[in-house]
Amino acid sequence: MTTMLQPGQMPAEAGGPTVTRIGVIGTGVMGADHARLLTEAVSGARVGGVFDVDGGRARGVAAASGGARVFADPYALIVDDGIDAVLIASSDATHEDYVLACVAAGKPVLCEKPLAPTVEACARIVEAEIEHGSRLITVGFMRRFDPGYTGMRALLTAGEIGAPLLMHNVHRNPAAVPGLPGSALITNSAVHELDIVRWLFGEEIVEVAVHTPRPSGQAGGTQDPQLLVLTTESGVLADVEIFANARYGYEVRCELVGETGTVTVDAPPPTSLRRGGLHARALPGDWRPRFAEAYRLELQDWIDGAAGGASAWDGFAATFVAHACVAALTSGDRHAVELPPVPALYRR
Amino acid sequence: MTTMLQPGQMPAEAGGPTVTRIGVIGTGVMGADHARLLTEAVSGARVGGVFDVDGGRARGVAAASGGARVFADPYALIVDDGIDAVLIASSDATHEDYVLACVAAGKPVLCEKPLAPTVEACARIVEAEIEHGSRLITVGFMRRFDPGYTGMRALLTAGEIGAPLLMHNVHRNPAAVPGLPGSALITNSAVHELDIVRWLFGEEIVEVAVHTPRPSGQAGGTQDPQLLVLTTESGVLADVEIFANARYGYEVRCELVGETGTVTVDAPPPTSLRRGGLHARALPGDWRPRFAEAYRLELQDWIDGAAGGASAWDGFAATFVAHACVAALTSGDRHAVELPPVPALYRR
Amino acid sequence: MTTMLQPGQMPAEAGGPTVTRIGVIGTGVMGADHARLLTEAVSGARVGGVFDVDGGRARGVAAASGGARVFADPYALIVDDGIDAVLIASSDATHEDYVLACVAAGKPVLCEKPLAPTVEACARIVEAEIEHGSRLITVGFMRRFDPGYTGMRALLTAGEIGAPLLMHNVHRNPAAVPGLPGSALITNSAVHELDIVRWLFGEEIVEVAVHTPRPSGQAGGTQDPQLLVLTTESGVLADVEIFANARYGYEVRCELVGETGTVTVDAPPPTSLRRGGLHARALPGDWRPRFAEAYRLELQDWIDGAAGGASAWDGFAATFVAHACVAALTSGDRHAVELPPVPALYRR
Amino acid sequence: MTTMLQPGQMPAEAGGPTVTRIGVIGTGVMGADHARLLTEAVSGARVGGVFDVDGGRARGVAAASGGARVFADPYALIVDDGIDAVLIASSDATHEDYVLACVAAGKPVLCEKPLAPTVEACARIVEAEIEHGSRLITVGFMRRFDPGYTGMRALLTAGEIGAPLLMHNVHRNPAAVPGLPGSALITNSAVHELDIVRWLFGEEIVEVAVHTPRPSGQAGGTQDPQLLVLTTESGVLADVEIFANARYGYEVRCELVGETGTVTVDAPPPTSLRRGGLHARALPGDWRPRFAEAYRLELQDWIDGAAGGASAWDGFAATFVAHACVAALTSGDRHAVELPPVPALYRR
Repeated sequence: MTTMLQPGQMPAEAGGPTVTRIGVIGTGVMGADHARLLTEAVSGARVGGVFDVDGGRARGVAAASGGARVFADPYALIVDDGIDAVLIASSDATHEDYVLACVAAGKPVLCEKPLAPTVEACARIVEAEIEHGSRLITVGFMRRFDPGYTGMRALLTAGEIGAPLLMHNVHRNPAAVPGLPGSALITNSAVHELDIVRWLFGEEIVEVAVHTPRPSGQAGGTQDPQLLVLTTESGVLADVEIFANARYGYEVRCELVGETGTVTVDAPPPTSLRRGGLHARALPGDWRPRFAEAYRLELQDWIDGAAGGASAWDGFAATFVAHACVAALTSGDRHAVELPPVPALYRR
Repeated sequence: MTTMLQPGQMPAEAGGPTVTRIGVIGTGVMGADHARLLTEAVSGARVGGVFDVDGGRARGVAAASGGARVFADPYALIVDDGIDAVLIASSDATHEDYVLACVAAGKPVLCEKPLAPTVEACARIVEAEIEHGSRLITVGFMRRFDPGYTGMRALLTAGEIGAPLLMHNVHRNPAAVPGLPGSALITNSAVHELDIVRWLFGEEIVEVAVHTPRPSGQAGGTQDPQLLVLTTESGVLADVEIFANARYGYEVRCELVGETGTVTVDAPPPTSLRRGGLHARALPGDWRPRFAEAYRLELQDWIDGAAGGASAWDGFAATFVAHACVAALTSGDRHAVELPPVPALYRR
Repeated sequence: MTTMLQPGQMPAEAGGPTVTRIGVIGTGVMGADHARLLTEAVSGARVGGVFDVDGGRARGVAAASGGARVFADPYALIVDDGIDAVLIASSDATHEDYVLACVAAGKPVLCEKPLAPTVEACARIVEAEIEHGSRLITVGFMRRFDPGYTGMRALLTAGEIGAPLLMHNVHRNPAAVPGLPGSALITNSAVHELDIVRWLFGEEIVEVAVHTPRPSGQAGGTQDPQLLVLTTESGVLADVEIFANARYGYEVRCELVGETGTVTVDAPPPTSLRRGGLHARALPGDWRPRFAEAYRLELQDWIDGAAGGASAWDGFAATFVAHACVAALTSGDRHAVELPPVPALYRR
Repeated sequence: MTTMLQPGQMPAEAGGPTVTRIGVIGTGVMGADHARLLTEAVSGARVGGVFDVDGGRARGVAAASGGARVFADPYALIVDDGIDAVLIASSDATHEDYVLACVAAGKPVLCEKPLAPTVEACARIVEAEIEHGSRLITVGFMRRFDPGYTGMRALLTAGEIGAPLLMHNVHRNPAAVPGLPGSALITNSAVHELDIVRWLFGEEIVEVAVHTPRPSGQAGGTQDPQLLVLTTESGVLADVEIFANARYGYEVRCELVGETGTVTVDAPPPTSLRRGGLHARALPGDWRPRFAEAYRLELQDWIDGAAGGASAWDGFAATFVAHACVAALTSGDRHAVELPPVPALYRR
């Protein structure tokens, strides 16, 4: 035996087991990260094709994904025989067209949140999927896979805190684009909590209100922060602080209060540092380190066909409630949320 | 388009990219967990074959691994053309023979720690690999991939705490087999810290001492717990509490003390519970949840050929130091540790 | 020298420095605790007299206070020459009469919160003190002396978190009397937060709203918990969860969110316990351990005449805002709070 | 009633209850702090007289203590009829003479640790007290009153962690005088842990060893840090990291490991700060904030004659063990500690 294997030359067979070939549309921060996970950290998948409006960016991600094909046309990618399923991480406004094309092609699609920016667009997507007759769409509410949130749900389900009554949520980003409309904090950021509340309690949000302090001087004119107050069908009350210019770091935390106890989700890193008069744990600069494990598990679940992700209906409902919150932000009043009944395709 | 895809029916191509086919020898707790990770959570790998002295256990793991072949003879598995690399998780006493067979077959092998129970066996393995002429062996010191330890090393390397001086380690298991010899606490458990100290400081341990309190009444006669005191070449002092019958749960923590600050590694889970007069975080019942991420990253690194894992030399050195600790436990004195020089194959 | 001093026989002079003799009215849980602190842990004070509607209880506290006189008539206690100042810890409904008698007698008085149950009663007390012409009244909002809250205020004042925007408060008791009206949660419990918000920001609350989840099944019909949302003059938004039947323990925590950072107040005890699969810190069963240090510092400040405590005007304002919250609880709407201007006696 | 009381003019009687008049010898950092506590925060005491080699410093403390007398001669202070008890906070070398003078005068004395720098001096003090025939001496091992340590002892005594086996201690100061001999770390700093181990387990230390890493480059030539390993009569093993130049702040922590669980003592402050990418709690710059409550409780206990403090025998034993540790530091070997039997006066 004189093989001279070197580190990095792990032997492997060509033509192994079935592997799902993913077409990635949109290779900005989010799409590039998804492509990296599919290539490096998910079992049974690889990036089969890539499209981005910025062709250079697409080529870079394709190269880093082990030589995926670069498509000049996203619709060509969607219908290509070499693409088994599609991941959409392009700008929000493009989601509807791409998702509808995936449904038309009968291909599974994972669409980054929000499903679409408007209630109407989301409704059209849901209708198309119902028309298609089976579920193809997953919406990228990755927090459903975060070990913190899944741990909280497990403790709730196990009866460890009794029946739920209240939930306090904090959602902070260090900085947002100056001049962002206040509504964007709801539709882009708080929409995660809107989904989590629906998922955690398994029921709909029926009333919303929004309270506002004076805006931060760091927010460039945006109504930032805001305090959303949500009420669910059974009467659970969930408040959400959404703060897009918190400056000090990225942080998502919550506490669920039940009749006999509470569960808190935070995400302390595994190291702490004592230095210069402080005992400190580092906070991340953005959401990616905080939810890295959630993204990996979300993709693995999708590739496995385990259907643990949010449905098109969940995407529709989140956008529907978000728009009720925007109305409540504008009016200052409580707003009732009257979702249409859940179509048969989405009932469990 | 009338496709009727259901959850669980994710389309995939047959004959995808290269995939490394792993032969798993030993499918007890550890081997089954590795097989599960290779199947479900690692990119670019699959379980190609399985052997266990308990054929039924082997068949169960093979089935759960997507239909891997079951081998009746571990040596047949090692030389089989359908096996690209081998993972050894069988009993410690069998490691040497299997690892030597892998080297003879020129196949990469990941061997669970310890590399072998005796210094002599480890030496024979190192010699065989040197004879072979290139590195094929990785030893499963998974803590090198734990985000806590890698975070600690990054902070140390970045100069955040100045030059290292002391390290305090705590390593507790809830329960051990009654009547275990005290030496087993060192060779089976503390060996992880022996490796971490070498890895963290990039230098050898040159002196060891072992202090013992009266044994726990829960330890069935074993000298448990123990306090190891290790000195490295540059004079860093590391103490290690090893406690195999700590009863309350599994826990690994450490604090590294430098000239201007300290870094602590623990692993707080992302949920905490307030109930019954307590604010509590759960501790795991064994090592697997604590090091789940480390195992996944270790396997991915190995499959990627990234060579981040421990070498056969590291396995030899850990066992060498462990046996010096056993001698110190017996004598009660400080023992010098005189490792042979590092062979050329293992120098960086 | 043949003195045979024994432990417990510390020598002392008779007739030492001036010591303030406190008359304690009301010797239930709160009054007995105050008497104990005045006797054992405060410099320059002693309990000079005691009154309680339950004479036996009064005698017990008097005996434990080093032989204080027991009064059969609270008004006789107030005017007695052997009483320098008065501490009122009797039932809320009696506060007004006793405080007015103290003002009439020209004696300093520390009145447990609330100053009086109604806005009108509080107003009469303020008028009497203005009529008297100098400040005699302190209201027992002890949180102003809690090291957590004073630490938070110091960090805010030092500019460590920038201008304040939001404050989240949690105030939980394990159990309340069944059938308590929902308003009592505001007037008895949340009144502490109403005072702290005024004290922390140095400005008035100008708008309030109350949101309610479905009541806890453990609350015996009380609207419990509640979420108060308060807005201050400058636009700081403070929410307050008040939960009188939280079951798991007593807990008060808060987070203050500024433009560049946040400060959190909690009160982790100095011991933590690892046992039975948990790493836990104990939570107290009621408010006394949580605020033991605050009570001691409040009493010492009062005895020292340092005037760090809440004034009659602060007591009036807290009750005024509390009643606006009760109105908001009833109506479900936002309520403006229009406090009268601060009288000259209370301006700084 | 036309009294015009102003803040700061709390009425008080002259000639109140008995108050113990304390003579304070030594008004440096420690003595001035004790005088402040006696004046402002302890019930039943006042500073009656003050001596310091620096007369100006003595006058400053006397003035801040409400006009205490300044003595030019410490022995005159000790025998003065206006002094009921004596607190010694002068330099270590002077302790013996002052304590012996107090015993000769039959006056209770609280002596800062160490009782005296040498074993022989401590023995002479013990002999003098035995000769006197009753206990007059308390040694200022204030940690016996720290809520962390008393909480730990209560949990141990209550059986919450089973029988004790191990204790890990960390004791860090930010900076020491350059060139300090390594022995001073033991006799001045680690002596606190030597006392705590004896107090916590109610038994003697019978063997000691000292391990040393290379000294910190910040330590100016001192052998700093050190790791002491202590064994008690029943076989509990306690290690103590003593680090006099830890730079980042002052910190004392420990974990006690029993057969079924552990107790940890630390002292998280009640506020935490999120800012600049960190979630941090502040660490104090020296020992005073960390043990402020312990000092107050120690003084109150002493004034109350409750005899909860360390005896002269405890002071002797701590110095005795400290010198055994110094011998072990020098030799590098384990040293047996053979304390003489406890004299009758000190048996419980």
